[in-house]
Amino acid sequence: MIVPALITPFDTAGRPDAGALQALIDRLAPQVDGFLLLGSTGEAVTLAPDERAALLAGVRAPGPVWVGIGDESLALARRHAEAAVAQGAERLLAMPPRFFDRALDPRAFQVYFEGLAELGEVWLYHVPVFTKMSFPVEVVVELARHPRINGIKDSSGEMARLEHYRRFAPGLRVFTGSGTTLPAAAASGAEGAILAVGNLAPRLFARVFSDARAGRADARLAGLAYETAALVGRGGVVLLKQMLRHLGLPAGVPRAPLPETSPLWPEAEALLARLQEEGWLL
Amino acid sequence: MIVPALITPFDTAGRPDAGALQALIDRLAPQVDGFLLLGSTGEAVTLAPDERAALLAGVRAPGPVWVGIGDESLALARRHAEAAVAQGAERLLAMPPRFFDRALDPRAFQVYFEGLAELGEVWLYHVPVFTKMSFPVEVVVELARHPRINGIKDSSGEMARLEHYRRFAPGLRVFTGSGTTLPAAAASGAEGAILAVGNLAPRLFARVFSDARAGRADARLAGLAYETAALVGRGGVVLLKQMLRHLGLPAGVPRAPLPETSPLWPEAEALLARLQEEGWLL
Amino acid sequence: MIVPALITPFDTAGRPDAGALQALIDRLAPQVDGFLLLGSTGEAVTLAPDERAALLAGVRAPGPVWVGIGDESLALARRHAEAAVAQGAERLLAMPPRFFDRALDPRAFQVYFEGLAELGEVWLYHVPVFTKMSFPVEVVVELARHPRINGIKDSSGEMARLEHYRRFAPGLRVFTGSGTTLPAAAASGAEGAILAVGNLAPRLFARVFSDARAGRADARLAGLAYETAALVGRGGVVLLKQMLRHLGLPAGVPRAPLPETSPLWPEAEALLARLQEEGWLL
Amino acid sequence: MIVPALITPFDTAGRPDAGALQALIDRLAPQVDGFLLLGSTGEAVTLAPDERAALLAGVRAPGPVWVGIGDESLALARRHAEAAVAQGAERLLAMPPRFFDRALDPRAFQVYFEGLAELGEVWLYHVPVFTKMSFPVEVVVELARHPRINGIKDSSGEMARLEHYRRFAPGLRVFTGSGTTLPAAAASGAEGAILAVGNLAPRLFARVFSDARAGRADARLAGLAYETAALVGRGGVVLLKQMLRHLGLPAGVPRAPLPETSPLWPEAEALLARLQEEGWLL
Repeated sequence: MIVPALITPFDTAGRPDAGALQALIDRLAPQVDGFLLLGSTGEAVTLAPDERAALLAGVRAPGPVWVGIGDESLALARRHAEAAVAQGAERLLAMPPRFFDRALDPRAFQVYFEGLAELGEVWLYHVPVFTKMSFPVEVVVELARHPRINGIKDSSGEMARLEHYRRFAPGLRVFTGSGTTLPAAAASGAEGAILAVGNLAPRLFARVFSDARAGRADARLAGLAYETAALVGRGGVVLLKQMLRHLGLPAGVPRAPLPETSPLWPEAEALLARLQEEGWLL
Repeated sequence: MIVPALITPFDTAGRPDAGALQALIDRLAPQVDGFLLLGSTGEAVTLAPDERAALLAGVRAPGPVWVGIGDESLALARRHAEAAVAQGAERLLAMPPRFFDRALDPRAFQVYFEGLAELGEVWLYHVPVFTKMSFPVEVVVELARHPRINGIKDSSGEMARLEHYRRFAPGLRVFTGSGTTLPAAAASGAEGAILAVGNLAPRLFARVFSDARAGRADARLAGLAYETAALVGRGGVVLLKQMLRHLGLPAGVPRAPLPETSPLWPEAEALLARLQEEGWLL
Repeated sequence: MIVPALITPFDTAGRPDAGALQALIDRLAPQVDGFLLLGSTGEAVTLAPDERAALLAGVRAPGPVWVGIGDESLALARRHAEAAVAQGAERLLAMPPRFFDRALDPRAFQVYFEGLAELGEVWLYHVPVFTKMSFPVEVVVELARHPRINGIKDSSGEMARLEHYRRFAPGLRVFTGSGTTLPAAAASGAEGAILAVGNLAPRLFARVFSDARAGRADARLAGLAYETAALVGRGGVVLLKQMLRHLGLPAGVPRAPLPETSPLWPEAEALLARLQEEGWLL
Repeated sequence: MIVPALITPFDTAGRPDAGALQALIDRLAPQVDGFLLLGSTGEAVTLAPDERAALLAGVRAPGPVWVGIGDESLALARRHAEAAVAQGAERLLAMPPRFFDRALDPRAFQVYFEGLAELGEVWLYHVPVFTKMSFPVEVVVELARHPRINGIKDSSGEMARLEHYRRFAPGLRVFTGSGTTLPAAAASGAEGAILAVGNLAPRLFARVFSDARAGRADARLAGLAYETAALVGRGGVVLLKQMLRHLGLPAGVPRAPLPETSPLWPEAEALLARLQEEGWLL
């Protein structure tokens, strides 16, 4: 089960472009199993509240649909969650507050996520490459007891975390956000993946993931998926958008001060050629 | 030269309280050399744009006044900067974007800070305990060439950084944000300090800093200042507000999910008694 | 394929005890697929050269046998390697020098490991929890071209590394050293595991690993293995030896200044009871 | 008070060269206030016990003389300490064990350092760039109560640590090991410095340090000292030895696998010219 962590297209004046996003969604829809809007790949942290609302109002995606929440206070998060739910979001994918991480005890995590869960179904989001914080597995296990906290997207790539969830929170639905470790995640109990590379080559990752769930491995395909995810991981949304633009997809540019192009482009161009040749691109 | 990094009082419903902030400013004004509004100690990252604007409109502080900016896109930062300048902010104290830090090359820092400098005088803000990012000294040196980027608040406590500024950016005004290392900062070329503990005991820190600038050290006072700053550093804004409330000051509570009280309170209570006895408290 | 990373028993005067080690080897031999002597779990970094030599001379283990090398200079490593090979070691498991890690360029790694490979078959050892250094995958791939550098024990638990080896160094034999991520490692191409918990319950880990290689998972057993490895990982050799002593095995005590007992003992005692009940203990 | 952290010359066959070391000591003696032998800059971690002993037997230095100890077990450290004391070492400069750092509780530090203090006067050594471990200030304060643990060399460059010692261990003698932060260390209570750059330009650092102790600062000299220490800090012993060789001093080469030359050499050559012109070089 592969879900793209959708990019958010910006025009060259830096404005979010809902029309372009809708066009990308329409292209992706036949090949994916749901959508994440306004996640970290969606550069949601760069958006003002009114921009978030306008984007959600301006697109329509076949479900299930997750909408990202990533604020530093419950007050702000609830504002964003209310707006998302009003637009039909089924699941809130919420990363923990992080700026004051040293002051966040287990009770603070509980206050935050349970406060959100009053507004809708909540999925936890652990993405240390961006949050630079630890999200203790014990806290996840505790939160998972709540009837409206139903899943986690774990992008850490740390499989010991997935084993911990399998052992101590067996009811928690687990999706990985790490495209470089799909076979491992499948073996460690993940049900699906929500991926930046889902914007680019969803069928390749779906294949590698389903192979792994079935106890198979095609080393060549696994290698190709690993290479693709590793490169996009290094280049981030800057490189991903550049790759999508190269394919003629309506990706727009990153929001300033992120640069428009990546120093990794030569590697990306060569990889795109191989993916194209094998028919994996969107 | 000691400037408090003002807290932002919230009422128990989580609303920012400009009246309480004004009352605190009025209490502090005779003992300090300026004010920082909406910095990290001000929990500014927890505020919505309208809440920021209302706070700035609702208070008046004798200058110089710095206003904190801490966004992830230039677009958002400019919105906040424009609102601050419209309310009379003299200096923008801007921390770098950080979420996508791996994609931020020197050019991206330049785009961001020069884009802000179109709107007013900019001071850089390096506070790795919160941003969890590096802000390379070479980038600071390069930015310091800009005619409207005039200073830096460096809270890292890394004196090699201050030596680097003194050697390679001699025109840059340097304020430390690290209360535990005041004598060191004075010896390494800092002109002043912008401090969370400036809300609590500004004269003590002013004394230790001016002693150090004069090549003196009163080991007992230096020790008391160190202890105070170290404790507030560990307990953060949660403990600082609890200490201020204990003194009857209009500090309010932290914004949820931050807790209202700190596990370090027993240590704080003992320290407050000593500070009180010696007459250092606000 | 499960190989114990053997502990080294010390008597209460702190002397290594080859007789006790031989007794442990004899107990383990029927249940395991080889042995690692003088690895990190073997506290080899605490031994003087003559103590290393005496231990190797004093025991005999059915093969394949790896002997750990963990020095800071090639000169010292070669001394230890020569002594090991003279005692019949088939494979040298060598961690990189680490003290001056910032000065180690790819050429330095090459000088070190190729210098060792003149003396015998070399396996690389990546164990960042102890070395606190990065061992770049690109360097591993380059070293793997050498005809006598044949394998790696990777204890990082980072499955993206294993994917990298599978993709770019397909001839390299990969053993994991991370007991908490066995199913993941199996799915990511690992052929076996060299484990501290191999001293304690080798059949449990062999079962979970072979299940995973076959595309199966018994969630209960996987959970039990995860729990055991996670606890021993937290408690380290101190806890592991305490557990082994509790079972009447000739584990001795850790070498000072490591403590003799672990604060995690209550958790361990409960877990041992469950492992015993199910018949997994040595 | 400036003490060089002596390099250890190796010949091109990788053998330590006591004669070269003696020649360097003789050159340095008139300009320095003591010597550290077999410290981290001395590449002591690369030496076998017999090599350590031969070096200590082969040189004579005017005191005070510190000898470095850096082992992973008390047994090994005591062996090395006994040999050092037998050769007349006045002070043992001992870094904590680090490989199993997660298992080291305060009691373990106590066992280790008090076990050493039975053999001679002990100075603690905190050098996180090499040990990659924390050495909690609370533990240092506790150890400082011991009648034979008299000082610390703190190379962290973290002035809050120095403030902590000044406040809570006023009897502990403090030397900094960080050449980039000399003025700060002087202002924070340090009595002297034990420095790698003490091999190269001891009088420059002595001047900057004594200026700072007197509450003066010559910004140009402070800048030159900072630049020199920062460059040698980045290039490590590899660059330092290359600089010394360039000056015709008997530095030898680093021990393999450390490279013989540094990529920073062009910067170093330019800096050496300036230091020479101003007459600061040895």
